[in-house]
Amino acid sequence: MPYYLFFYDYLLFNKLNWVYFKDNYIKGDDIMLNLTLLGSGGTMPTPERFLSSLIIDYKGRKILMDCGEGTQVAMRKFNTGFRTLDIICITHLHGDHIYGLPGLLATIGNSNRTEPLTIIGPMHIKKLIEEIILPITYAPFGIYVVESPNEDLGLSIIEEGLRIVEESNSTEMTLSTIELDHSAPCLGYSFYLKRHPKFIVEKAMGNGVPREIWKALQHGESFELNGRLYKPEMVLGDKRKGIKLSYITDSRSIDNIVPFIKDSDLLICEGTYGDDEDIQKAKAHMHMTFGEAANLARKGKVRDLLLTHFSQTMDDPREYKDNATKIFHNTAIGYDGWKKTLKYR
Amino acid sequence: MPYYLFFYDYLLFNKLNWVYFKDNYIKGDDIMLNLTLLGSGGTMPTPERFLSSLIIDYKGRKILMDCGEGTQVAMRKFNTGFRTLDIICITHLHGDHIYGLPGLLATIGNSNRTEPLTIIGPMHIKKLIEEIILPITYAPFGIYVVESPNEDLGLSIIEEGLRIVEESNSTEMTLSTIELDHSAPCLGYSFYLKRHPKFIVEKAMGNGVPREIWKALQHGESFELNGRLYKPEMVLGDKRKGIKLSYITDSRSIDNIVPFIKDSDLLICEGTYGDDEDIQKAKAHMHMTFGEAANLARKGKVRDLLLTHFSQTMDDPREYKDNATKIFHNTAIGYDGWKKTLKYR
Repeated sequence: MPYYLFFYDYLLFNKLNWVYFKDNYIKGDDIMLNLTLLGSGGTMPTPERFLSSLIIDYKGRKILMDCGEGTQVAMRKFNTGFRTLDIICITHLHGDHIYGLPGLLATIGNSNRTEPLTIIGPMHIKKLIEEIILPITYAPFGIYVVESPNEDLGLSIIEEGLRIVEESNSTEMTLSTIELDHSAPCLGYSFYLKRHPKFIVEKAMGNGVPREIWKALQHGESFELNGRLYKPEMVLGDKRKGIKLSYITDSRSIDNIVPFIKDSDLLICEGTYGDDEDIQKAKAHMHMTFGEAANLARKGKVRDLLLTHFSQTMDDPREYKDNATKIFHNTAIGYDGWKKTLKYR
Repeated sequence: MPYYLFFYDYLLFNKLNWVYFKDNYIKGDDIMLNLTLLGSGGTMPTPERFLSSLIIDYKGRKILMDCGEGTQVAMRKFNTGFRTLDIICITHLHGDHIYGLPGLLATIGNSNRTEPLTIIGPMHIKKLIEEIILPITYAPFGIYVVESPNEDLGLSIIEEGLRIVEESNSTEMTLSTIELDHSAPCLGYSFYLKRHPKFIVEKAMGNGVPREIWKALQHGESFELNGRLYKPEMVLGDKRKGIKLSYITDSRSIDNIVPFIKDSDLLICEGTYGDDEDIQKAKAHMHMTFGEAANLARKGKVRDLLLTHFSQTMDDPREYKDNATKIFHNTAIGYDGWKKTLKYR
């Protein structure tokens, strides 16, 4: 059956089914995460490099990872927008990851945003936001702070914003955190964008599933109708792998990270020092060398590795790329404005 | 007498006189203020413009005027140095003038500075520094905060740093403040670098002044020796005009500003709006148009006017320059990295 006829048929049928179709279409193979590395530097902002941070764009709504001094300037430079930012994830409370918060919130406030914003971070993030940031900024919108979440968080687009929701089969994305090993309490993050099994019309029809419960079943819910129990597998194809993105900075390369980043499509990882000989510096300041980050990528069997958070002592981190690629081939060196789209495979 | 002979003579005489000579040399006609406009934007930092701030370099020691997000990046870009910064003057506590403080202090801290730093600002600056900034930064040096000084402050180089000293004839520079008219308590600043009258050797000798008190008299102090009172005018020439620099941002153009900036060699003044038609916006947001700033410069009979703190809605403030020059000819449009040296005339 041609698609436009299928669509027409559903419109005629009822509104529920139209919504189902629309959702199914949006949730189809076009779903992706658009990433923009806003900055790639560590410790201090310089004229050459913004401080490490990342924008994750999901259906036009944004997650920001870290916010050092100048992050709002990078957001402007790389056109990521301010009003559509729904979630800010802070890895730790060192200045190069937080000093941009008052300015960013003020700029968002000036953009006339009224929708609430969620800030997630490690221990003491609530105190930071409530006692330090909010008294000196203009934030005419609700701010919900989640401190050190001790379980995975479900994220979905609700009322046109990306919000934390109760984890369920219909949750669109899962956010996980891990305690890293740095000189301050520090969280690593991973995002898993779920991929629903294919909805197979022939299978649904073959199993005699009434159309009005197709959507519920597609979203993983079982449904009883007229005394018969309908299960998701009556309309769905095989399980499909979603998209996994991991973000690890700042930390030593501890073993716990390996299962946490396992099978990521992309691992964005700090590589503060390019030179293998800087290993003692890396240990002293609780950072990683390129080689250590590459080792994590290899052990975690990730698809790609992007290095960031470069020491300002490295003029050109690309000079040290071999120190990573000899351990993990698919390594890229981050730079301000780097972009990538992660799609379902 | 050739200079080198003069110098030799003094070295032979005694150490006091050598110091006198050295000081006199340094305090001579080479004394100047080297200015670097670090940024020229208002409200929000953008990729095109840093936020308004200024470095005043006096004998290699620095005064920073305002510190918005990114000011430390501009300091790095324009090579003004961090360790030699002795005084930070804050005009008011709006974000575009203060959000760069935690990062700047941390960067100075990382430069291993141990000498104390002075921060001067309006009402509530103490609370800001003590309760908001210091808890989240690394400042392993003393910070002295001066809130709303109600009289002029004397500045001199002491122990290799520019410090507040008791106002006296030997004070090198005077810092004055004025309450401006903005939506938050806001201070305008002016700096007057004194110029000592010329020391006239022939006059000193003619008046029979003993050499060991030349220095004291040169610095404006009277001196009694062997029952005779020696006065400064016995060794000095006529009074000479020093260097006056005024810094006015953010404010409406109130009348009080005129006597405050009177006869400045340079007035650096906010000109948030270039277009005369934006006068209502200027009034609403308590800023000035180029024309209003130029009017102040004209009434205050300053030598030169530099406009800064441009609204981000102006892509190129130079387009509106005529709106200022038709009122005050010696107007320049500020830009990031603008430099000027103010010398004794």
